[in-house]
This record gives sequence, structure tokens and C-alpha cells, in this order.
Amino acid sequence: MSAASRAKRIDPSLDILVLEKSPFISYSICGVPYFVEGLVSEVDRLIRFTPETFWKERQIRARTGYEVLEIVPARRLLIGRDLQTGQDESVPYDSLLISTGYTPIIPPLDGLDGPNVYTLSNLDDGLNLRQLVEKRPPGRAVVVGGGYIGLSMTEALRHLGWQVAVVEKNSAVYPSLDADMSALVEEELKRNSVGIHLSNPVRGLRRDADGTLRGVALEHGSLDCDLTLVDIGIQPNVELARSAGIPLGATGAIAVNERMETGTPGIFAAGNCAETFHLVSRRPVISALGTAASKQGRIAGENMAGRRGVFSGILGTAVSGVFDLTVAQSGLSSETAVEAGFRPGVTRVSVPSRAGYFPGIRPVTLKLIFDQPSRRVLGAQIIGDALVAKRIDVVAAVLTAGMRLEDVAQLDLAYAPPFAPLWDPLLVAANVALREQ
Amino acid sequence: MSAASRAKRIDPSLDILVLEKSPFISYSICGVPYFVEGLVSEVDRLIRFTPETFWKERQIRARTGYEVLEIVPARRLLIGRDLQTGQDESVPYDSLLISTGYTPIIPPLDGLDGPNVYTLSNLDDGLNLRQLVEKRPPGRAVVVGGGYIGLSMTEALRHLGWQVAVVEKNSAVYPSLDADMSALVEEELKRNSVGIHLSNPVRGLRRDADGTLRGVALEHGSLDCDLTLVDIGIQPNVELARSAGIPLGATGAIAVNERMETGTPGIFAAGNCAETFHLVSRRPVISALGTAASKQGRIAGENMAGRRGVFSGILGTAVSGVFDLTVAQSGLSSETAVEAGFRPGVTRVSVPSRAGYFPGIRPVTLKLIFDQPSRRVLGAQIIGDALVAKRIDVVAAVLTAGMRLEDVAQLDLAYAPPFAPLWDPLLVAANVALREQ
Repeated sequence: MSAASRAKRIDPSLDILVLEKSPFISYSICGVPYFVEGLVSEVDRLIRFTPETFWKERQIRARTGYEVLEIVPARRLLIGRDLQTGQDESVPYDSLLISTGYTPIIPPLDGLDGPNVYTLSNLDDGLNLRQLVEKRPPGRAVVVGGGYIGLSMTEALRHLGWQVAVVEKNSAVYPSLDADMSALVEEELKRNSVGIHLSNPVRGLRRDADGTLRGVALEHGSLDCDLTLVDIGIQPNVELARSAGIPLGATGAIAVNERMETGTPGIFAAGNCAETFHLVSRRPVISALGTAASKQGRIAGENMAGRRGVFSGILGTAVSGVFDLTVAQSGLSSETAVEAGFRPGVTRVSVPSRAGYFPGIRPVTLKLIFDQPSRRVLGAQIIGDALVAKRIDVVAAVLTAGMRLEDVAQLDLAYAPPFAPLWDPLLVAANVALREQ
Repeated sequence: MSAASRAKRIDPSLDILVLEKSPFISYSICGVPYFVEGLVSEVDRLIRFTPETFWKERQIRARTGYEVLEIVPARRLLIGRDLQTGQDESVPYDSLLISTGYTPIIPPLDGLDGPNVYTLSNLDDGLNLRQLVEKRPPGRAVVVGGGYIGLSMTEALRHLGWQVAVVEKNSAVYPSLDADMSALVEEELKRNSVGIHLSNPVRGLRRDADGTLRGVALEHGSLDCDLTLVDIGIQPNVELARSAGIPLGATGAIAVNERMETGTPGIFAAGNCAETFHLVSRRPVISALGTAASKQGRIAGENMAGRRGVFSGILGTAVSGVFDLTVAQSGLSSETAVEAGFRPGVTRVSVPSRAGYFPGIRPVTLKLIFDQPSRRVLGAQIIGDALVAKRIDVVAAVLTAGMRLEDVAQLDLAYAPPFAPLWDPLLVAANVALREQ
């Protein structure tokens, strides 16, 4: 949708057609947990455009319920099917964007097929889960995977009165965080009576003969439950591209250059199906974030409309709420820094979120990861109150600029008693890191 | 205090003495409005160190009630007076730091001397004002000057039930903001029943024969009042330095190099009495902010202890709360950008603070000031909810790095429905600015 909108704005004479298999275009998948919880009352609120409003507001056609079955680059043709009529139809193109997104990884487990298992990877899943929590009293849920979506749903279900257990095959929730920071998230989950089962992979689901979900079998032990959510990771949807001979990258996503062009003339790819690269490690990565996807789409749209747009890569900046904590990260973790060939040093500080005398102070815990030889900042993880959501963006700018610890230590950051201490946590962390060097 | 602490940490063998005329060291002047309002219950909460605790925790001597009368650089000697005994005493030094801060500018007005007039430039003033608001019922207050301290006190007094009028000789409150942004602050003040009198300088104070304050005479009209706060600007305290022959800079503050050395050997200056320079305009400026002062102190301490520290200048990053608004700025305004020789372009956007469907969204209004020929970002002003306090820090990092609009447009900033929209206001502003170029 970003690409279509951007291209149309640059060149209103373009004839643009968006093809979508599902019944929905332009919805916020990140909003689904809030819809399930009821914080967002109507599913329509999550939908930015329908095909009708997209046409009305932007003069771009969008067709839902149409599945592309094959791309024929040599003839610049798509072969697909109208899912309502069942009829095959082909669509010619001059310029094509593949933005097929990702699919959640579904582990090959007994009992996974059947009622009361959700992945929350699309709006239909969200609608079905909302119906379920509305029609029955709160029960027991098992969330398989302690990542962003899993923990968002954990909180939503707790707010609805469900008992929730999080099962994670790794040794910590939020595997993208360093273990000591994940531990703070685990404490918050425990404070909110969430069961946590680490280093304990799921082996299968237990169902009655009639299919009723009864529980989850783990490597060690088992858990009774009435509902299972699965969020163990994503894979880019690349089958269409692969079968058309479009080259994939080392990560398995569709290979693109900085203009979002694939290796096949006239075909672009953007969003979570396209490979991108990490601004700090300079390595190819897959991103599951909407921020990267929409920026890539915008760049693809510029290039498809004849301008020159260049995508500059990602940092993986992300924030999420976990009950009363805000958890944010940007750049490399200690682990990914080592993988990328750096020699990381780390500094972790815990600083009041406001002037020490101000009512309502809470700690901000900030972990700074830097390259020891060059003192360049490589990443940060921050846990604290809501302001953390934008504190991490300061780090994103620092990483983009390639600043070193001594540059960060002198940043002229805002202070006022209700909002920050005189020495901002980021400045404190940089100064401590410099002292410990 | 920053300099003393830093020097002692680097070289614990140093014999450091802090001399202070007032009864207090190490207090937060920014906390005074919250103390007057009663949000901070005890004045001791605003004091980080007493001479006793400073000695105990840091092994640094501090002497209050000692006024330095003269610096004799040729003999490396201070001549001063113990204000309690009235006795003159001299103190030798090897290395001296002048950190005499600033004094509020007091307009030469009839009736200004006398009871119920406050400047809130020191803790005593805050204590006296707190006593006044505790012992009498709420009345009418006139705040002369619509800057940071004036508006903080306006809010505190309104919360205490006072009627408050703000009188400003300029055509807008918050003169450091562009006029259209100041207008948003004025609307918020009006929503909170604060009287606003712009382009209307104070001509004098009206008092009864017994000295009782009755009102304020303005260029146009007059206002009855029981209390007057004066906050029309600051001047650096440079008399001691000037009389010792230490060179002053173009701004009237004490001239220092990047190591905080004055033109006189062995003498450093730091804090609001010392000149600094603006990172964007590269011009000398006076700063009234504690953030700059404490960083300068730290750098001075490093150099006084024999290390090499360099201060990299300021951006004037600041944030304050004005009732339900958070108001923040960094870098140059439209006006100061022109003064500094740039050809500024501006873009102003108003974007929801969270995902559009999330409950409790409020607008974030962000004005980006950039140099048209180079597209380099020169400054920003942001008004919105509390997260604005750290949104401005992203701009501070952008300014420090010298980023251009196209760099800002691609920043990988955090998104999650409760904290930010998918396209952060800063990204929207940069994209709009690029489009309008």
C-alpha cells in the first residue's frame, strides 16, 4: 500500500492495481492484540483503507480475494485466480512489486490442526480469537514463544482474566534482548501471575477424541489449556518469487538492491518478504517489522514511478509494552554484535526516569553495547516507563550517525524534573562506559 | 559541584574546596516550582548534597556563607569574607574554577523592591514563596515574562487556586519558539484560565503607603495583584572575573576555550557564567540551562585534574510542561536560523501520538527547521504529550550528527500502537519537507 500510494503521488497518470488474496487490505496487524482485548472496540478501526476508500481517496484500484498463482517475467504477466468465482485470470504488468509479507513458522506438531489454536498473523485469526474470548468465560491459555506478539497477547489475555503460561524453547523470553534484560521482563510477567516455562520446547498438543483442546505436551512436563497461541518466528513468503526464478538472498528472503529491485528486470520486492540489511552489522537480515516494510514500500514506489529512491537499511528498532514496563531495543545485542565480528563491551545503568525528588519516579534500565576498540555504539536495550519508547529513538539516531561513546556522552539532551533527570540515562551509560574502558 | 566531583574522582589526592556565598550547595533550581506547588513536599528533597554529605560521600570540602570578593591571579589568591563572622579571609589556589552562575535580570521599575515580588532564582526565594502560598488564601498573581520559569510558576499557582496573568513585552510567550508554536502554548494557557497580555511591557508596581503590593502598571492598562513573579531573562555573573582582568566574550559571559580555560592562566570557568557556543550556528551563546552547565563543569573538572576534556557545544535542547502540554525544542528557531546566516525552510506537521485506532490519541505538532540549500536540519520544536520530552532528543542527535532531511526520513524509529504511529511524526515531517522542496 505504501508503494502504490507513493508511486501514484509521484505520477498520477500511473495505472496501479493492488492484488490481495485475503479479504482485507491495509490493516494493522500490530493492533490485533488490542482488538482481542477490547481496547480497540471495532475491527474496522484497524483497517486504514478498504478497496472502496483506497480508490476514493487515492484513485488506486485494489482487488481482494485474488490469488496470484504464477509470475511469468518473460511475458510480464501474472496468472491468478478470483477466489470468489474460482475463475483463473491473468493480469499483465509493466512493473511488478512483490510484497507477499511473511507467514508465521508453524512447528510440525501433533494436534496443532484443530480448534482453539491461533497464530495471530492475520486479521481473520484476530476476529476468530475475539469471538472466542467473548463467548466463553476466561480459561487457561498457553502461549508458545516469548516474542513480541506472544507477550502482547499474554498481556491481553491476562487483562481478560485468563490464566496464561508462556512456553519458550530458548532460555529467556524476548530472545532478541540480552539475557539480563530479558530477566527484567520475566520478573514483570511473574508479578502479573504469568507462568513462564523456559528451555522447554513444545512436543505436541493434547486433544480429546472430538478435537477439543486439552493441553500442551512439553519436553519436560505438560500444561492444561483451552487455548494455544503460537508465535515462534516468521518466514518470508517467497514461493511465488522462487518459482518465477527470482533470486533469493542468503537469508532465504527475496534478494533486492538498495532500490528494492530484484534480480529480475521489472520486478521489485519490498516488505517482510524482501531481504534487507542491518545498518550496524552491514549484513543481510530478514525483518518482521512494519516500520521497515513501509519504508521499503515507499522506496519501491518511488523507483517504480521513475524516481531514484534508496533504502538505507534497518536497525531493528522496536518497542513494546509488557504490563507496566516498556521494553525497547535498537541495533545489535551482545550476541549479534559478536556474530557480526565486533568485540563488544557492555554497560548497564539503572537511573531514575525523572529528577530524583519528583513524585512517581521509576527506574530506567539502559544497556549500551559498544565496540571496544573503536568505542562506536552498536546497540542499546532500554526498559522502563513509556518515555523509553522514544529514548530508544535517540539511540537509533546515534547508531545511524555511527557515533562513539564520547559523542554520546556530550549529547545535549532535554531535562526537566517531570520528564528526565539532569543527566539522562543515555549520558550516564556513555560516561560509565568511558570510565570503565 | 560537577567539576569538583569529576576532578576528585580522577585524582583522589587533590585538595578541593568549594566556596559558596549562599547557605546552599547542589540544589535543583528547576525543582522550585514543584516545591512551591507542594508536589515536592520538603525543600531538602531539592538538595542533593549538604557540605556534610558532600564531604562524607565524596571527600570534598564545601564552605557555604563565604563570599569571594576578589581574585588575584598574579598571586593565585582569593580574597573573601566569612558572611557569618564578617571576617575577611584569603584562600590560595593552584587552579581555580569560576562557576558563579547567573542572576535574573531585574528591570529598573518603581515599586519592585518590597514584599511579594519574587524571581525564583535561588532556593531562598522558593522557600519564601512557599511560605506565602501556605499562609494566605489564593489571590491574584502577575507573572512578568512568559519564559520557562514564568510558565512553570504560572501552572504551579493555578494548581494552588490562584488567578494568574502572564505579562510579556514580546508578541508571544516562549519567545524561543516560533510564533505559530507559541500560539499553541497560549491556547493551552487560556484553556486553563490564565490571562495573557502580550506586547505589553511592565511600567512599574503599585504599592500602598505601607508597601503592600496592589498591582502592576503596564504600558497599556494595569492589573491588580497580590504577588508578582519576575522572569524576564538572565545575565551571567561576571563581576568577579571582570575585575580580575579575565577576558569576557562577545556575549558578555566569561570567554573560555573548549577546555573551559579562561584567558588567565590557571583559571577555568564553567556553567551559566561562562560563554559557550551553539553547535548548529557555531556562534557564541549564553546558556541558562543546567544540562549545559553540568557538562561544562564535568569537562572543567577533567582538565583541572590533568586530563584532556573538550566541551562540544550546545543545542539549547529544552523541555517543559505547560499544563497538559509538553513543549520541547532543540537547535535553531526560524528566527535564529536567519540570524546565523542560513536560509531556513520550515515544515509543520500534526500527527497522532499513537496508532490512529488506539485509545487516548493526542496530536503531536512538530515543526522542523532546515537549511534550504543543503537540506541540513537546523532545529525542531515539538508540542504534544509527555513522550515529546524524548522525541526532542532524537532531534538533538540528528543535529549533532549534521543530518539532512533525507537522512532523517529513513531513521529506523520505534513503532508500537500504544507509543507511536507507524510513521513517526519526525519521519512524516522530513518526508513532507522533502516533498515541498
